[in-house]
Amino acid sequence: MIHDNLKINDKGNLAFANCDTTTLAKKYGTPLMVMDEDRVRSHIRTYKNAMEKSFGAKAMPLYASKALCFKGMYKIAKEEGIGIDVVSSGEIYTAVLAGFPMEKAFFHGNNKTDQDIKYAINSKVGFFVADNIEELDAIDNYAKIANIKQKVLLRLTPGIDPDTHKAVCTGNIDSKFGQAIGTNQADFITTYALSKKNIELKGFHCHIGSQIFDCQPFIDAADIMLNFIAEIDKKYGYMAEYLNLGGGFGVRYTKDNPQIDYEQNIIKISDHIKELCKKYDIKMPIILMEPGRSLVADAGITLYTVGSVKEIPGFKNYVSIDGGMTDNPRYALYQSPYTVLVANKASKKADYKCTIAGRCCESGDLIQEDVTITKPQRGDVLAVLVTGAYNYAMSSNYNKIPRPPIVMVSNGKDSLAVRRETIEDLARLDV
Amino acid sequence: MIHDNLKINDKGNLAFANCDTTTLAKKYGTPLMVMDEDRVRSHIRTYKNAMEKSFGAKAMPLYASKALCFKGMYKIAKEEGIGIDVVSSGEIYTAVLAGFPMEKAFFHGNNKTDQDIKYAINSKVGFFVADNIEELDAIDNYAKIANIKQKVLLRLTPGIDPDTHKAVCTGNIDSKFGQAIGTNQADFITTYALSKKNIELKGFHCHIGSQIFDCQPFIDAADIMLNFIAEIDKKYGYMAEYLNLGGGFGVRYTKDNPQIDYEQNIIKISDHIKELCKKYDIKMPIILMEPGRSLVADAGITLYTVGSVKEIPGFKNYVSIDGGMTDNPRYALYQSPYTVLVANKASKKADYKCTIAGRCCESGDLIQEDVTITKPQRGDVLAVLVTGAYNYAMSSNYNKIPRPPIVMVSNGKDSLAVRRETIEDLARLDV
Repeated sequence: MIHDNLKINDKGNLAFANCDTTTLAKKYGTPLMVMDEDRVRSHIRTYKNAMEKSFGAKAMPLYASKALCFKGMYKIAKEEGIGIDVVSSGEIYTAVLAGFPMEKAFFHGNNKTDQDIKYAINSKVGFFVADNIEELDAIDNYAKIANIKQKVLLRLTPGIDPDTHKAVCTGNIDSKFGQAIGTNQADFITTYALSKKNIELKGFHCHIGSQIFDCQPFIDAADIMLNFIAEIDKKYGYMAEYLNLGGGFGVRYTKDNPQIDYEQNIIKISDHIKELCKKYDIKMPIILMEPGRSLVADAGITLYTVGSVKEIPGFKNYVSIDGGMTDNPRYALYQSPYTVLVANKASKKADYKCTIAGRCCESGDLIQEDVTITKPQRGDVLAVLVTGAYNYAMSSNYNKIPRPPIVMVSNGKDSLAVRRETIEDLARLDV
Repeated sequence: MIHDNLKINDKGNLAFANCDTTTLAKKYGTPLMVMDEDRVRSHIRTYKNAMEKSFGAKAMPLYASKALCFKGMYKIAKEEGIGIDVVSSGEIYTAVLAGFPMEKAFFHGNNKTDQDIKYAINSKVGFFVADNIEELDAIDNYAKIANIKQKVLLRLTPGIDPDTHKAVCTGNIDSKFGQAIGTNQADFITTYALSKKNIELKGFHCHIGSQIFDCQPFIDAADIMLNFIAEIDKKYGYMAEYLNLGGGFGVRYTKDNPQIDYEQNIIKISDHIKELCKKYDIKMPIILMEPGRSLVADAGITLYTVGSVKEIPGFKNYVSIDGGMTDNPRYALYQSPYTVLVANKASKKADYKCTIAGRCCESGDLIQEDVTITKPQRGDVLAVLVTGAYNYAMSSNYNKIPRPPIVMVSNGKDSLAVRRETIEDLARLDV
């Protein structure tokens, strides 16, 4: 098994976080998303402890909640004492509902609308991570109206191009995000932010991409960011209080991916940052990181019911399931690899090569091609592993298919966190 | 302008279906989807009249409602007297809500769940388009329980590979859909269906793909299907009453696409089918077609507000808008081309090359790359044209972004058809 929260129990079924997945499928129906709460908390603590140990007590991970956003996740973040990265009024609203202390929220995004900015200021969001000049003008304007000085970090692009999928690579100069250091636009937006009366510039942010397994791009990014911070200090006498290094550590989706040791990586990055601060003779800023995927991905699995097994002689075998790109569009979007197995036949030999097809009327609705599993039949429960991040978050109602529920398991006990959408729900916006 | 429902009005603004788009943006806010009801009806009438004229009074287009599904669309289908293609309980529910006569509904999909099958039978759906053996067993079973004989067409794959995007090509043998004629599996499922006591086999269905501009693949498919029908008649004495040729006619998204004359194409296909029926000495089946995209795509536009214009020297210009892959994931999924213009500067010179970026925290969230538009600024209204099909239908709440409303315009008058989703709506499933 690719993660240690996955086991085969004595009935020969897949157990996830010590719960029999076939029992969960029966109790809640399928498709079903199951989240291992203990694992989420354990990942959060790994980051938090490693960061505090390496960078000092004020360092903090911020949960990049776009990876999986519902009330329960913000409650966990609150209880674990970490911050959050939010990207819309919708995320802010959900965090507020969950009682999250909003001074620890960082508001991201390449295009915050006027409405968002007003809403975030009214919700007392701690920090804006501002992306562009127009946004700074708008923040300054609405902060003035609210009679506050809004704390702001600036999103910069360090010009790093890590080895990852184009759609999730965000740190190179040619990006819709932030202002490039290499073109001097980062310098310009810094002076612009410093000139704004209702903005309190607190530092800088960068994010180089997602699903990165090598530590070096993060070290390279830190290099460029600290050099920039030192330059700005020299030129303008402005010293950044915060440096937010974003997220991006890779997650093990299949046996082909390594398992990253987050703690060791954080220590490596911190050693390098400390050296750099010495070299530039600057005080180390408060370091923030924004894990999303690496906190929740391997804490989630999705359970489906098999509908048909279609063998086309000379071509492929297709196994159709009762979900697909509506609850997991990552294969359709990026051809993302996933590990798949038959939950109620987990102890049986996996020797059946097939393609897992979703139920949408679209050929591209596949979950995985050419995987080898135990041969299933209609009614079997198929488990797709490591679906905690960017699955439910990106789900749609294409083909008017309702979203699955999310069930939390902790200590072998299950509870409903997000209820199943109904077909009545799907027509609720129709006039 | 690429379609004649688009004009520049005397204020220099983009007018759509005789409505000033900037007025609509102001009235309803952005992002906003606008549907030209008169154009939808006109397309439906083109299909209906051409099909009745060519194939006889019983021939009928079925609206492939997965392209854009809400109550108002089924009301239009009902008023225009056409059938519908539905793919889930969600679509069936919405059609029933709209008062659609369900005997004219055809239930599609490669994986109908037991729940769907029961629901469809209870909702008195006229026809199932059955995909596989397991499904036939389930239909037969639930039809028996309901004490009916369920009318069924069988979905076959003719082995046609039209020139289109892989994700929307559905008629080749290697497909998750249907049973291949070339492998004899179509023959087998036919005899299997005929053996089922509670199934009334009414004929066959094929669908070769989407966004096809050439008539020839349809003619080729008709060839293969009619040859199969004649063979089955000879071998088993079963004559198909219906032949459903699916959908797939292409739509003009940009000036690079031609404008298809649907009527002429239908006439061409019908001439060929009549010849074939003579050749095989069979009675022409009742012909059905399933237009989706070609009924609604060019009847829709999406309006956005520009948030920032970012010029990266030596790289690109990025124009960020207040929507993106959440309301239109087709560029992220298939790199689909779109025509874009600045609605409130429609009469000004378009000489600014830029990339249109959505507001999601994801680099792949682009609507179009390297288009040439009038240089916009924050607050301008950007129009993306021909968004009626597979935009709203595929929309998500990624980044907790609410879905836009759909406004219908007819005869220069606008009315709300689907209300804007709120951030409160987005948390309604959270426990």
